[in-house]
Amino acid sequence: MAAISCSASDLQPLLGAAANATAAAQYICGRFDAVSNKFVDTAYAVDNTYLLFSAYLVFAMQLGFAMLCAGSVRAKNTMNIMLTNVLDAATGGLFYYLFGFALAFGTPSNGFIGQHFFGLNKFPSQSFDYGYFLYQWAFAIAAAGITSGSIAERTQFVAYLIYSSFLTGFVYPIVSHWFWSADGWASPARADNLLFGSGVIDFAGSGVVHLVGGIAGLWGALIEGPRIGRFDHEGRSVSLRGHSGTLVVLGTFLLWFGWYGFNAGSFLNILKAYGESGSYYGQWSAIGRTAVTTTMAGCSAALTTLFGKRLLSGHWNLTDVCNGLLGGFAAITSGCSVVDPWAAIICGFVAAWVLMGCNKLAEKLKYDDPLEAAQLHGGCGSWGIIFTALFAKKAYVDEVYSGQPNRPYGLLMGGGGKLLAAHLVQIVVIVGFVSLTMGTLFFLLHKLKLLRISSEEEMAGMDVTSHGGLAYVYNEECSNLDPAMLKPGFVVSRTAPPSSAV
Amino acid sequence: MAAISCSASDLQPLLGAAANATAAAQYICGRFDAVSNKFVDTAYAVDNTYLLFSAYLVFAMQLGFAMLCAGSVRAKNTMNIMLTNVLDAATGGLFYYLFGFALAFGTPSNGFIGQHFFGLNKFPSQSFDYGYFLYQWAFAIAAAGITSGSIAERTQFVAYLIYSSFLTGFVYPIVSHWFWSADGWASPARADNLLFGSGVIDFAGSGVVHLVGGIAGLWGALIEGPRIGRFDHEGRSVSLRGHSGTLVVLGTFLLWFGWYGFNAGSFLNILKAYGESGSYYGQWSAIGRTAVTTTMAGCSAALTTLFGKRLLSGHWNLTDVCNGLLGGFAAITSGCSVVDPWAAIICGFVAAWVLMGCNKLAEKLKYDDPLEAAQLHGGCGSWGIIFTALFAKKAYVDEVYSGQPNRPYGLLMGGGGKLLAAHLVQIVVIVGFVSLTMGTLFFLLHKLKLLRISSEEEMAGMDVTSHGGLAYVYNEECSNLDPAMLKPGFVVSRTAPPSSAV
Amino acid sequence: MAAISCSASDLQPLLGAAANATAAAQYICGRFDAVSNKFVDTAYAVDNTYLLFSAYLVFAMQLGFAMLCAGSVRAKNTMNIMLTNVLDAATGGLFYYLFGFALAFGTPSNGFIGQHFFGLNKFPSQSFDYGYFLYQWAFAIAAAGITSGSIAERTQFVAYLIYSSFLTGFVYPIVSHWFWSADGWASPARADNLLFGSGVIDFAGSGVVHLVGGIAGLWGALIEGPRIGRFDHEGRSVSLRGHSGTLVVLGTFLLWFGWYGFNAGSFLNILKAYGESGSYYGQWSAIGRTAVTTTMAGCSAALTTLFGKRLLSGHWNLTDVCNGLLGGFAAITSGCSVVDPWAAIICGFVAAWVLMGCNKLAEKLKYDDPLEAAQLHGGCGSWGIIFTALFAKKAYVDEVYSGQPNRPYGLLMGGGGKLLAAHLVQIVVIVGFVSLTMGTLFFLLHKLKLLRISSEEEMAGMDVTSHGGLAYVYNEECSNLDPAMLKPGFVVSRTAPPSSAV
Repeated sequence: MAAISCSASDLQPLLGAAANATAAAQYICGRFDAVSNKFVDTAYAVDNTYLLFSAYLVFAMQLGFAMLCAGSVRAKNTMNIMLTNVLDAATGGLFYYLFGFALAFGTPSNGFIGQHFFGLNKFPSQSFDYGYFLYQWAFAIAAAGITSGSIAERTQFVAYLIYSSFLTGFVYPIVSHWFWSADGWASPARADNLLFGSGVIDFAGSGVVHLVGGIAGLWGALIEGPRIGRFDHEGRSVSLRGHSGTLVVLGTFLLWFGWYGFNAGSFLNILKAYGESGSYYGQWSAIGRTAVTTTMAGCSAALTTLFGKRLLSGHWNLTDVCNGLLGGFAAITSGCSVVDPWAAIICGFVAAWVLMGCNKLAEKLKYDDPLEAAQLHGGCGSWGIIFTALFAKKAYVDEVYSGQPNRPYGLLMGGGGKLLAAHLVQIVVIVGFVSLTMGTLFFLLHKLKLLRISSEEEMAGMDVTSHGGLAYVYNEECSNLDPAMLKPGFVVSRTAPPSSAV
Repeated sequence: MAAISCSASDLQPLLGAAANATAAAQYICGRFDAVSNKFVDTAYAVDNTYLLFSAYLVFAMQLGFAMLCAGSVRAKNTMNIMLTNVLDAATGGLFYYLFGFALAFGTPSNGFIGQHFFGLNKFPSQSFDYGYFLYQWAFAIAAAGITSGSIAERTQFVAYLIYSSFLTGFVYPIVSHWFWSADGWASPARADNLLFGSGVIDFAGSGVVHLVGGIAGLWGALIEGPRIGRFDHEGRSVSLRGHSGTLVVLGTFLLWFGWYGFNAGSFLNILKAYGESGSYYGQWSAIGRTAVTTTMAGCSAALTTLFGKRLLSGHWNLTDVCNGLLGGFAAITSGCSVVDPWAAIICGFVAAWVLMGCNKLAEKLKYDDPLEAAQLHGGCGSWGIIFTALFAKKAYVDEVYSGQPNRPYGLLMGGGGKLLAAHLVQIVVIVGFVSLTMGTLFFLLHKLKLLRISSEEEMAGMDVTSHGGLAYVYNEECSNLDPAMLKPGFVVSRTAPPSSAV
Repeated sequence: MAAISCSASDLQPLLGAAANATAAAQYICGRFDAVSNKFVDTAYAVDNTYLLFSAYLVFAMQLGFAMLCAGSVRAKNTMNIMLTNVLDAATGGLFYYLFGFALAFGTPSNGFIGQHFFGLNKFPSQSFDYGYFLYQWAFAIAAAGITSGSIAERTQFVAYLIYSSFLTGFVYPIVSHWFWSADGWASPARADNLLFGSGVIDFAGSGVVHLVGGIAGLWGALIEGPRIGRFDHEGRSVSLRGHSGTLVVLGTFLLWFGWYGFNAGSFLNILKAYGESGSYYGQWSAIGRTAVTTTMAGCSAALTTLFGKRLLSGHWNLTDVCNGLLGGFAAITSGCSVVDPWAAIICGFVAAWVLMGCNKLAEKLKYDDPLEAAQLHGGCGSWGIIFTALFAKKAYVDEVYSGQPNRPYGLLMGGGGKLLAAHLVQIVVIVGFVSLTMGTLFFLLHKLKLLRISSEEEMAGMDVTSHGGLAYVYNEECSNLDPAMLKPGFVVSRTAPPSSAV
């Protein structure tokens, strides 16, 4: 192995006489080779640092989901929904290791499904290292998390185990292969034969993650039907409020925090100059811009929802603002790397109205989704896919998806309709494939009576019937109270005495 | 673009004959130029990785604030305070993008206000990239968060929206321009004409962030007056306890976690050698030291509060320890990069007593601040500014604020009184400017009857009157209980039966 | 200081004439030296970025512990347990700064105890910088956190203060010196005289952290005896359920998040090529692998517990799954860097059964540990130590513990029994030393009547008796209710009215 260290006393005699030119050249070039190798090492270290911490952030979203879901359901189903969130990560870990990653990114492969790396066999390689696997695993478990929100509070635990494994292990990986593997039929990185000469630009997955999770949830919730009491005898919508606004906010902020890993992290590496080396402009700048567009879309969607809901409902609603914010994030996820911050503000503004519209529609259709997951991830995710096709900027598309000159870009930016055509295909194909697979699965579970719990269980809550007890025990000694005033199973909370002087 | 790769067979004929010396020299130098450029790229990638993840940490403080605030207010105002925290981030995002960042860092400018980059126009450049914007935005929203704590539980939501926009969009950016923009009149980086030959060393913002937020809150809380019931008929102080110690601890730890991004991240870049290149000593070491001084100040303040409060009140008080800890952090924020760990321990020790003293004083003056925000961020922030002027070490000041030999440093370290003079000016100027702007604004809102809610609303709690319902619904089925025993709006919680055998 | 910048017009005359060969060689070599130094700077910046953010993640585990502990105890002791978690960090900070770090890593020293760096004297140096101190501090406070779980709900606060200082300041540092300081008698990095020609491979501390904390907790809990009511009059086990499943899940996910800093961060640096420089294979890849093995062990343990407990208890238990998950992490912590992902799955599978077995045994022996800390950290930690000695792979051991050819490796991988012998010694020595020190301390505290609270205090809960009030105040106005129905100190929660139309 060549070393960089250079000895003048060694080099001098070589330079002094023409006869030694060969040795001199080898001496000097050997050092440059060492420098070059050292830069390769450095890039691996920097890029892996960037990717690994991004993966940790994406993983933190799983905690965000757990808290958001917990806060959005009634107290009696808290343990149930949180257990699904923990298991999304755990079963996802095993299945993505055994099959999922291979189906998604195994290469070389055909355009439809990957064929290598089962059980991380023949791993790592120059192109695929463990950090990449970890990052993609964290994405896979997010999709399953979305779906569990739609069918919360009324689904048998066994049904959850089955669909979650199927979604993380097969459905999601196959879809991600199409759009994100270099071999995928709709990939923007496919060397030849790009879909509409463009391929789909779904940078961090408004389609691959959010639409997939949302459509799966839509079918589950549709087939199960609404929770008992969600619509009253005259068919009017009744709000079944989640049990903790605090947990909703905790979850929302954690998702926001993690979304920086989700969107900005999707560049996978940061040490890459754009154009001229030695200038300030490179992937690091595009990554910063992506974090900013993500932020702007969320902020704009939150404010739009705040004032929109104030007009519609008369009060300043926190949980709606949180959902609006997340809808803005779900929408910008597709185009975050190829649009300007001002466009991201438009993205968020529209996403907020898409979500409010979808929620109105859901109410009309008596569709019950405790987390608004199909509306938020499906509806805003779809809008995000279209948004990218409208607002993607030429310069950014060329930088982020390099190697292919004159790519189509956003329609409203003068880039023609090819990107939009490709993106409409993405929506149709994802909706179709997920409906076919997950819709069929939920239907089968329904027919096998494995999907929905009994109405007695639903009234009692799943924590008591399936998980050994409620999530909260604020007082373990109810015996101090007159038992006559209590029905079985009810206790009065012990809290502090009324405000007293310090 | 020159490449590093070096071919011995190409170089050899060039070296062999004197006639080719020009070509040989160009060949060799071309490669060194490429190496040099590659180092520039590498530094951008490393520094942006450092800055972006630091920005994410600072953003996590917003979640910390939300949880701390929520836990510190009564259950009936939880949704209200958390909504303000979410909106600090959201409105802050839009306003900082449109105006704030431009007013703070737009350059070239005069010493009082920035004049470029409105709406991120002509952005990015070699000096200002997106990561920097994101980092500064995360700082801006922290200031607004501080203020919302002071006026919690009794402020109209519209008043909140107005002051928050004004603070994040104008007041805070202007103050930060003075001390942090290279053009600022009190900046320590100003090439000529330094204030007292020194400029103000407010490294991460005990003044710029904490004192600004604290003084704004002070005026808001003073003008509104105390919450109903905070002082009884004889004027004795009555503790209106926050509804959840768990949330207080959650928020405190999240703030601690994020403070590493706040303080250590304020270096903005990490790849910078001090003195000789190739030695172990550089900005990376100063960053580590800053994380350690931050830790030490918080630990010392927490322990001082623990024992101090034990002496004063007779018990080991958790929420006081949390506040003491945060007071230590607010104090060290100014000097964290230029003092030794042992000095940081002194900083935290004094900060704890400053906070206890301010709290005693507030009680005497019947000043009510639900989060102790004015005391903590204003009081301990001011102490931190003075502390820096006393304990800043010459070597560290020269390294961190390089380019200006023989800078003044800490009075007690033998550096004379110039730094102290500059820092006293900082306190006076910030208190004056924020009082003038925010004090006036709160007074106007008060006169327009837009500031304080009605006493009926205050008794009922804002979550019910303005935000559509309470934060917590631990039981949705109160009908099982004898209605006679319940007043309207009260239900008994359903929790688990008393401890039973497994 | 040499610069990289190279001027062809300067270099050309030097190369042209043999007489100038010396100058030419110096010119060229000077630039290579500068390049070499710049790489040194870069490595420090990259490695410190990696180490500092890893340290922040490990610190986040303290928040995880606080939430896990809070959720696992009864509501009446929430403030008490959280205060211990805050103070672990705070007292740990001061004591680790004053003594602990010096005893652990002070070098040069003998094999048993370190002798330098008290109060960070003569710090930093080329080998030890502030980031390393911060990282090790975050580890030290984790050990104390484990122990506080075992003795929760019945220990005097003064006893906590004493044992926590002793553990963080002395016991833990000494044990970490043995195994992790290059001077330690059982260190795998000791140049000469390795224990069994191997030394102990306890990469991130299944032994040094988890077994130490677990054994300390075991003695504390044994000497105190079980909580009142934990075993009924006939000696049957009675579950004293924790008061919040939500907090348990929050804590578990935060610990998972932080564990990536704990295990993958223990490499301390990331910019290190294995074998040939310029290949994709280096420490960055091993770090990614370590994050994956950690994930796999946790996932496998969680699923094993899910199905195991379903068979044993008949329901899908969330808190048990969380504990199982953490047991898997505690076990893989020792060998995470030197095993393959498939082996990590085995590690987690066995860890789950070890934990279930230890819990059964604890019940039989009437041992009460509110957090299952001795079982989880002691039991699974011990299994992890043995697991490493069975499954450590030759190639990985040689890379991660380089500089010593032909090291012993895992018994089942064909590496002989020497590593297993060393690891059995580790278990015996840790159990012995911690029993001797912490066991004696707890016994002395017991004899001095400083250990356990009175039964009146235990029934009332420590939050009321020692910490100034309960953690939760969900309603401050109980006066609206008929006082006759309430015993003193009891109030009825005010929550939202039953589900109503929006």
